[in-house]
Amino acid sequence: MNIGLIGLGKMGFNLALNMIDHKHEVTAYDIHTDAVRKLEAYGARGAASPEQLVRALETPRVIWMMVPHTVVDSVLAEITPFLSEGDIVIEAGNSHYKESIRRYNELKEAGIHFMDVGTSGGTEGARHGACYMVGGDPEAWRVVEPVFRDTAVENGYLYAGRAGSGHYLKMVHNGIEYGMMAAIGEGFEVLEKSGFEFDYEKVARVWNHGSVIRSWLMELTERAFSKDAKLDDIKGVMHSSGEGKWTVEEAMELQTATPVIAMSLLMRYRSLEQDTFTGKVVAALRSEFGGHAVEKASSSNKLPSLAAK
Amino acid sequence: MNIGLIGLGKMGFNLALNMIDHKHEVTAYDIHTDAVRKLEAYGARGAASPEQLVRALETPRVIWMMVPHTVVDSVLAEITPFLSEGDIVIEAGNSHYKESIRRYNELKEAGIHFMDVGTSGGTEGARHGACYMVGGDPEAWRVVEPVFRDTAVENGYLYAGRAGSGHYLKMVHNGIEYGMMAAIGEGFEVLEKSGFEFDYEKVARVWNHGSVIRSWLMELTERAFSKDAKLDDIKGVMHSSGEGKWTVEEAMELQTATPVIAMSLLMRYRSLEQDTFTGKVVAALRSEFGGHAVEKASSSNKLPSLAAK
Repeated sequence: MNIGLIGLGKMGFNLALNMIDHKHEVTAYDIHTDAVRKLEAYGARGAASPEQLVRALETPRVIWMMVPHTVVDSVLAEITPFLSEGDIVIEAGNSHYKESIRRYNELKEAGIHFMDVGTSGGTEGARHGACYMVGGDPEAWRVVEPVFRDTAVENGYLYAGRAGSGHYLKMVHNGIEYGMMAAIGEGFEVLEKSGFEFDYEKVARVWNHGSVIRSWLMELTERAFSKDAKLDDIKGVMHSSGEGKWTVEEAMELQTATPVIAMSLLMRYRSLEQDTFTGKVVAALRSEFGGHAVEKASSSNKLPSLAAK
Repeated sequence: MNIGLIGLGKMGFNLALNMIDHKHEVTAYDIHTDAVRKLEAYGARGAASPEQLVRALETPRVIWMMVPHTVVDSVLAEITPFLSEGDIVIEAGNSHYKESIRRYNELKEAGIHFMDVGTSGGTEGARHGACYMVGGDPEAWRVVEPVFRDTAVENGYLYAGRAGSGHYLKMVHNGIEYGMMAAIGEGFEVLEKSGFEFDYEKVARVWNHGSVIRSWLMELTERAFSKDAKLDDIKGVMHSSGEGKWTVEEAMELQTATPVIAMSLLMRYRSLEQDTFTGKVVAALRSEFGGHAVEKASSSNKLPSLAAK
């Protein structure tokens, strides 16, 4: 299949190689021209601009966007003027599903199919077999399914239904991921405090062989401990990219209780703070009513929190 | 190896078959004599009492207990008078690690080795390859390691160190399991409320192929949805067997924060209640200060909660 690929970052570049492995003809554009040059060496056709990329493809076009969700609208604004009725735009980044529904409706007015695709499996997955959750028009899905089948692991793609459903599934997938990761982290926290002398790499390894909690995340845990037995070189600051928060916001909107996922998100935020105002208030109150001693803040404690930077 | 096996429940019976597959000679006792008869048909030697089981083994004996943690002490009381110095008792049930340390110390006075073994993987694991976490004396471990190697999945056993460490790891394993299961459950809760028409079996299947959250628990989720597409026949009551609670109690004792695992435990308790007193109090207060309407309890709402039964 002829595919126009926009975005050659870590995910997009690997995906392009994956597509080329499967005999798809890739026309690629990225704002960084060196990535385009590099991909040309693997047999892709480079484009100098989004417009040139669109014009280089025969209709109906299939254009795959693999760009940060913050630039999806600007890329769409660049290519839409040159698209034709019946073209298919695949947006495989991490957009909020409501944005994807909006974009679907906007492009639908021009007769263009917009497909929202949640992609999981990281950069290794993009290169050797990803996991896709796809939303959008079924008639467009029938056209593009082969490229998903080819670049996914076996059984690693699902046409989930109407517009937004792909990114919705990816959002919830990441919410579950937050909770699972927090549970794993907390378990090792208990082991670390226990007074036993556990070898965490070996613990993760045995848990990956026959236990109920065997999982890819536990395999990654094993790999991390194999590189750094006590993770001494890693600070316990847990950043996040948004989809855990979106899951919790969605649950709030649905007025449904997801306390474990919500707590895993809140504890990520807690990890961004060196000290908390909550803690100061509670310590002050204990002192006020019970005369309990407070710990004095040193000048370093008075630094702004990481989150405020 | 000659092994005396006490306890032929779902786990013990399957484990016995697993041992026999690997050419171990099993002498078995269970309070239910029919289970003993049944196992004899597979080539085990039956014992009519714990005493007879002990006497049938040559020293140093290896006795494997696979009984509910509530009866471990009474079984030990039955066999200990007939044990000799150097014998090895393996306790592979779900005991609290502190009980295991106590038992280790009690048996040590008589020169008997006590090994605490956390076993994971369920009944299928017991039959075809379990996952073991083992604590106890290293000299005893060297004697019994072959039977663990034979009945575990490949790499599915770990000698974790001193007495208690095996059951400690199993406790924390189960705490992690609680958190992971809750995260999965909450994710599907959001999908169910979303208004999209997801096929949950297909969702679980795609998440098991290439996604970050692929795991044995997600495979079990897929299997459950394959049997009952919306789990209509299952009530959302989440019972528990103790180890999640032990993990949280341990975290409290260590004064370390495990809010995600704790929340997953608390939500299991919430699921046992049809209505809550918390809810009555909060609804009453909203009415008192703001005149907000309360929902009237019907007679069925006044039933005692499940937890009180």
